[in-house]
Amino acid sequence: MRGVKVAGIGETPMGRFPGRSLHDMIREAGHQAVQEAGIDPAEIQAAYVGNFAGQQLTGQGHCGPLVTEALGLEHVPALRVEGACASGGLALLQAVQAIRYGIHDVVLVGGVEKMTHQSTAMVTEALTSAMDTELEAQTGLTFPGSFAMIAHRYFHEYRNVRREMAQVAVNSHDNALLNEHAQLRKRIDVDTVLNAPAIADPLGLYDCSLVTDGAAFLVLTADDIRTGTDQDLRRVRITGSGHGGDALTLHGKKTVTSFGATRQAAATAYAQAGRSASNIDLAEVHDCFTITQIINTEDLGFFEAGRGGDAVAEGRTARNGDMPINTSGGLKAKGHPVGATGISQAVEIVTQLRGLAGERQVGKADVGMTHNLGGTAGTCVINIFEGE
Amino acid sequence: MRGVKVAGIGETPMGRFPGRSLHDMIREAGHQAVQEAGIDPAEIQAAYVGNFAGQQLTGQGHCGPLVTEALGLEHVPALRVEGACASGGLALLQAVQAIRYGIHDVVLVGGVEKMTHQSTAMVTEALTSAMDTELEAQTGLTFPGSFAMIAHRYFHEYRNVRREMAQVAVNSHDNALLNEHAQLRKRIDVDTVLNAPAIADPLGLYDCSLVTDGAAFLVLTADDIRTGTDQDLRRVRITGSGHGGDALTLHGKKTVTSFGATRQAAATAYAQAGRSASNIDLAEVHDCFTITQIINTEDLGFFEAGRGGDAVAEGRTARNGDMPINTSGGLKAKGHPVGATGISQAVEIVTQLRGLAGERQVGKADVGMTHNLGGTAGTCVINIFEGE
Repeated sequence: MRGVKVAGIGETPMGRFPGRSLHDMIREAGHQAVQEAGIDPAEIQAAYVGNFAGQQLTGQGHCGPLVTEALGLEHVPALRVEGACASGGLALLQAVQAIRYGIHDVVLVGGVEKMTHQSTAMVTEALTSAMDTELEAQTGLTFPGSFAMIAHRYFHEYRNVRREMAQVAVNSHDNALLNEHAQLRKRIDVDTVLNAPAIADPLGLYDCSLVTDGAAFLVLTADDIRTGTDQDLRRVRITGSGHGGDALTLHGKKTVTSFGATRQAAATAYAQAGRSASNIDLAEVHDCFTITQIINTEDLGFFEAGRGGDAVAEGRTARNGDMPINTSGGLKAKGHPVGATGISQAVEIVTQLRGLAGERQVGKADVGMTHNLGGTAGTCVINIFEGE
Repeated sequence: MRGVKVAGIGETPMGRFPGRSLHDMIREAGHQAVQEAGIDPAEIQAAYVGNFAGQQLTGQGHCGPLVTEALGLEHVPALRVEGACASGGLALLQAVQAIRYGIHDVVLVGGVEKMTHQSTAMVTEALTSAMDTELEAQTGLTFPGSFAMIAHRYFHEYRNVRREMAQVAVNSHDNALLNEHAQLRKRIDVDTVLNAPAIADPLGLYDCSLVTDGAAFLVLTADDIRTGTDQDLRRVRITGSGHGGDALTLHGKKTVTSFGATRQAAATAYAQAGRSASNIDLAEVHDCFTITQIINTEDLGFFEAGRGGDAVAEGRTARNGDMPINTSGGLKAKGHPVGATGISQAVEIVTQLRGLAGERQVGKADVGMTHNLGGTAGTCVINIFEGE
């Protein structure tokens, strides 16, 4: 297996951009990544694109060649990968595997989503396509409802972590204040979260991630390919990757207070990188809802089962804690452009490992992780990044 | 690179099945493939799913875990791959690469689509998501219009092949009569096609592929994995695979009378297999419209540029010709369950190479090809199959 180098990164600001098309966002983030990599575009051999709701919200499928044509890379074979909110992570996984196993030497991987121009009802309907439509969505269930049930079950099996969930949101907002790409740059406190309108008890408005327009891209190369960033920036490699699966439905899972897909992906990624949870300096952890982040941090092995809330309360997951989570602001405050999220997480980790995160830079950033979850934890992709 | 063996195949009948859900079709075709492979389901390491219009026509995305849960394979990491009408082919490409490059040893790959329950208007809208929505679909262009323009340009550059296009449809219908899975089992003649209602001049009703419900699955393994079919059936390997790209838009292509994506995919697949066009005994060639098949057979190197029509007129592409095309009935008469089409093509080629195609069996079937095209030829995937 060959080393996989991150040669270039690019990202649009995340937010509500009525005037920006998919093409616009692809061009901004894609050209950034290709230019930073300093490679001849003719060297790019394949493109992997994460997109979730393009067909439902913009009428646009077939996003592989959409991306390559927008970037003037018509010669590059391209495909779209979809796995709900893990679409970006899955595209990244395919791209990493292509380099690691010698299928290609230079690839482009990106994600893009345009969501905010549609009504809340339309966006909600699009998002529910990530659950089992026939068995779940047709009952009227939506994702806040699913994760509210998960939170209640967690409270039942362990303890009520409503206050700690609020602190998760507060941490993300604190971090987003220092990220100029973040959608929601607004300081909040625990009371803001606890007093916000209920969405699905116990989840309130501030426990839910955002609806976002945005794009993010990476250029990946084999380790021995010379690229423009070799001299100027700390070299960052992807050393371990894992893909986990579980039942699509809530009722099909063995448990919902621990995510089998996260555990499976973590086991593979740790083994491939020769690392364990204790080696990870910082992580972007999928936080579609605040409870999701807490459960995932347990399944990733950062904290014991049932103790994720304690870790938040103790400040361990804050930017200056011993396990900083979502320094970007996360899905909660940086934003959640669904198909781009998994790539945008990688942009943050690479930026931190390069020591270029400015005011939100964490102290020790040698080994970072991205964790991207799809649907009601039916899909999970994890990547481990290491600075040279 | 390791050998890739087709260990099991499965397919539903293709047609209009108002009472069948995605789950039903996945179960029928998926269980068939797994059972035929005779492997322990616990051995399956990944699942790749082709689906195009699930989000628009059934509200169902996230088809990776939909498939695994429906088949009782919740432990298997799964993902959906989308590239318009080449979605199935792309899923197959990812699955083949996973085996060939040592990522996995045993994988499931399938495609599924449910389309006929929706109105023609809804299906047409869903299909146009395979072109550039902002730059093309918003002008009112649909795929019959795109390929009608391509046909006229072909007539201009070479000669009028209207009659040969009709013969393409006749051949497909003749073959479908002998395929019990085919959607349209009805003998037609050239006059039927020429006198049919116009869809977009010069394309008439019988020049267009079908709207279809259906699913198809394969189990692929590394060559050295023992499977249930080893003793009883001729061993079939996938020896070469290629992926080609081109601009998404019609106006972005250098030419439209030859498909760059097909040529690129063919070059890669032939090189990998160590084969050339002259080695191919039979092929399933993407025929979304009759003109598409003619152009593709030229780009695949079966016939010279501008001579694809002659080959049809001379009977060379008929089932008893020297280059049988679409013995299954093709997209035209077997049906076009979009995301399943690329897998269903493989089911036909494997069946022919095993010598089990019954009345439609061709004489020499040692090396076969599947050719799957997406959108206005923005994506192409080709696989070469060889019997032992």
